Amino acid sequence: MSANQSVGFVKPELIEFSAPLLLECGKTLPAYSLMVETYGNLNADKSNAVLVCHALNASHHVAGLYEGQEKSEGWWDNMVGPGKPLDTDRFFVLGVNNLGSCFGSTGPSSINPDTGKPFGADFPFVTVQDWVNAQVRLADHFGIHKFAAVMGGSLGGMQALQWSLSYPERVGHCMVIASTPKLSAQNIAFNEVARQAIVTDPDFHGGNYYEHGVVPKRGLRLARMIGHITYLSGDDMAEKFGRTLRTGDYNYGLDVDFQVESYLRYQGDKFADYFDANTYLLITKALDYFDPARHTGGDLTKALRAATAKFLLVSFTTDWRFAPDRTREIVEALMANQRDVTYAEIDAPHGHDAFLLTDARYHNVVRGYFERIAKELA
Amino acid sequence: MSANQSVGFVKPELIEFSAPLLLECGKTLPAYSLMVETYGNLNADKSNAVLVCHALNASHHVAGLYEGQEKSEGWWDNMVGPGKPLDTDRFFVLGVNNLGSCFGSTGPSSINPDTGKPFGADFPFVTVQDWVNAQVRLADHFGIHKFAAVMGGSLGGMQALQWSLSYPERVGHCMVIASTPKLSAQNIAFNEVARQAIVTDPDFHGGNYYEHGVVPKRGLRLARMIGHITYLSGDDMAEKFGRTLRTGDYNYGLDVDFQVESYLRYQGDKFADYFDANTYLLITKALDYFDPARHTGGDLTKALRAATAKFLLVSFTTDWRFAPDRTREIVEALMANQRDVTYAEIDAPHGHDAFLLTDARYHNVVRGYFERIAKELA
Repeated sequence: MSANQSVGFVKPELIEFSAPLLLECGKTLPAYSLMVETYGNLNADKSNAVLVCHALNASHHVAGLYEGQEKSEGWWDNMVGPGKPLDTDRFFVLGVNNLGSCFGSTGPSSINPDTGKPFGADFPFVTVQDWVNAQVRLADHFGIHKFAAVMGGSLGGMQALQWSLSYPERVGHCMVIASTPKLSAQNIAFNEVARQAIVTDPDFHGGNYYEHGVVPKRGLRLARMIGHITYLSGDDMAEKFGRTLRTGDYNYGLDVDFQVESYLRYQGDKFADYFDANTYLLITKALDYFDPARHTGGDLTKALRAATAKFLLVSFTTDWRFAPDRTREIVEALMANQRDVTYAEIDAPHGHDAFLLTDARYHNVVRGYFERIAKELA
Repeated sequence: MSANQSVGFVKPELIEFSAPLLLECGKTLPAYSLMVETYGNLNADKSNAVLVCHALNASHHVAGLYEGQEKSEGWWDNMVGPGKPLDTDRFFVLGVNNLGSCFGSTGPSSINPDTGKPFGADFPFVTVQDWVNAQVRLADHFGIHKFAAVMGGSLGGMQALQWSLSYPERVGHCMVIASTPKLSAQNIAFNEVARQAIVTDPDFHGGNYYEHGVVPKRGLRLARMIGHITYLSGDDMAEKFGRTLRTGDYNYGLDVDFQVESYLRYQGDKFADYFDANTYLLITKALDYFDPARHTGGDLTKALRAATAKFLLVSFTTDWRFAPDRTREIVEALMANQRDVTYAEIDAPHGHDAFLLTDARYHNVVRGYFERIAKELA
């Protein structure tokens, strides 16, 4: 196949797991389903599989298109495909929607078999560790003993890191992009405002809004607006919007004056139309809770000792959500453990969002790293 | 009097202005009142007056205490008093609650004489320029032709700067602290999310909530939580809260896990109990609209040419809301106009809030500058 093509039309698949899953919170899910997509072909010895973990609002739909749906490209379509940095001519790529999400995997909007109604507030608060434990069974389902790589950006990077700690023998390479070993107080604060926006929306009904036939759209909209500010860098916002006025003059009222207002309202509205509020709460809590050094008295070096994978870490200079300093903490802890670590700090203007965007330097680093993995496999 | 004492018990005073005030939006306020406080004594030639302009949620109550009310210190009590950096043994200090605010001056919650009901959504969106125009009449009321200094932090600094531009002959010194010549796209974005939180609160009723006997507390609470994140530096939050848990363990639910969540909820609740939602909207719009270079094609040097005052500008290293770079833009534009400029960049950990806090280096700069003014007056 020629370079830089799409994987083409894809179809998701729902995989059911009937064994109970004990969660970190102490509760047990008696059964669950995960929605997945795969691209490329699994080789005979099942050694060329790459697991791609998603961040807050993404899904199993990593690459390709849905037939008959325009603009349905996967969320990492610039990264995954024939001839792309993660080359589906060489690797078998597995995308999975996490437990608790709202794109087909079991989550708060799924029917609780005990009640015949949506779980709603009864769905347990799952963690990064729980996601990884659920994903392990997915690997077993595909007969994959060891992933060539587990990779992800942001919250996806946390899952990759957790894989390397919980299942070191099942991860060849761990690729942690635009991530952090734990959220800062400021990170948690932004998440908390978003959550408060949702839970104080009168349409939230304590999480059981499904049975009221409403959705806490106001809260979701605000949550997304807050999130968007933290995904972009200040300079990027200045470059994109500056103080440009929508009508050329101040309106001296509550209508949109500045383009940036219009952008945020649009992003908020769009998100509130498709995302589930309980999932938003659950996923932001999973972010807040992630802290592998929590059980080693804050000692990250000790916490990362379990990892045996080789690592690629990437950060972006203008990412103020998970700044390069945070990734460097991981790099230093891994190096203190004499692990094989490659670290790239990409000078990119687009803030946290940079991990999703097309940037030659960034993509060349990932491409080069996958070429190394391919050579090791050959 | 000995050093560093309080101005003691103070009483606010309401001053009425019966002449119509034409506003930037094109509307006219037929009459208005301003709530003020004064400290110290106006000298015989009325040359020792200092106007203190307030920021978003503050008021005329700059210093001192209200008799019978514990913890009623003015918002800049560490700065203003006998022996303090702005020494009330030497200067006559005037604090004023801005037009449109909610602490006694005419604003959205005042009765509209045309309808006999609160203005609500009918109160005009006043600007920094309008505030200054209203304050000029206050100066006239006290017979003050020229202020020894006009000073303020954040939005207060914008008013001080506007004074120097609109009434250059009436300002001896202009003291602009932790401010900016205009809001960035990111600044506007945060304001917009706060506004959307308020206007989408079902209790907002299009701004006419007074007549419904409700207050959009949910929205105000969120607005304040968002604001608070931007007032503190990331390092300051890490230092104050880190990832400290309130109960020592995760609750795997929506209760407070981290101290920072508890802090934000508390700040939000407190604010929603006393602040007016329409005022919040109006003041954030005044912030967004401030842009003296708007009428000079973005040329700040040209815009500041009108100023003849001497300037003190102060910024704080960890202020990411109005970072030092923003103050330097003002410094450079003033210097390009050969103005008398003193600039101090204070290495302080407390973010934007630093302008309100006691910091020896910061206070010594302001103290020294006022000593210079006192010498000029002597």
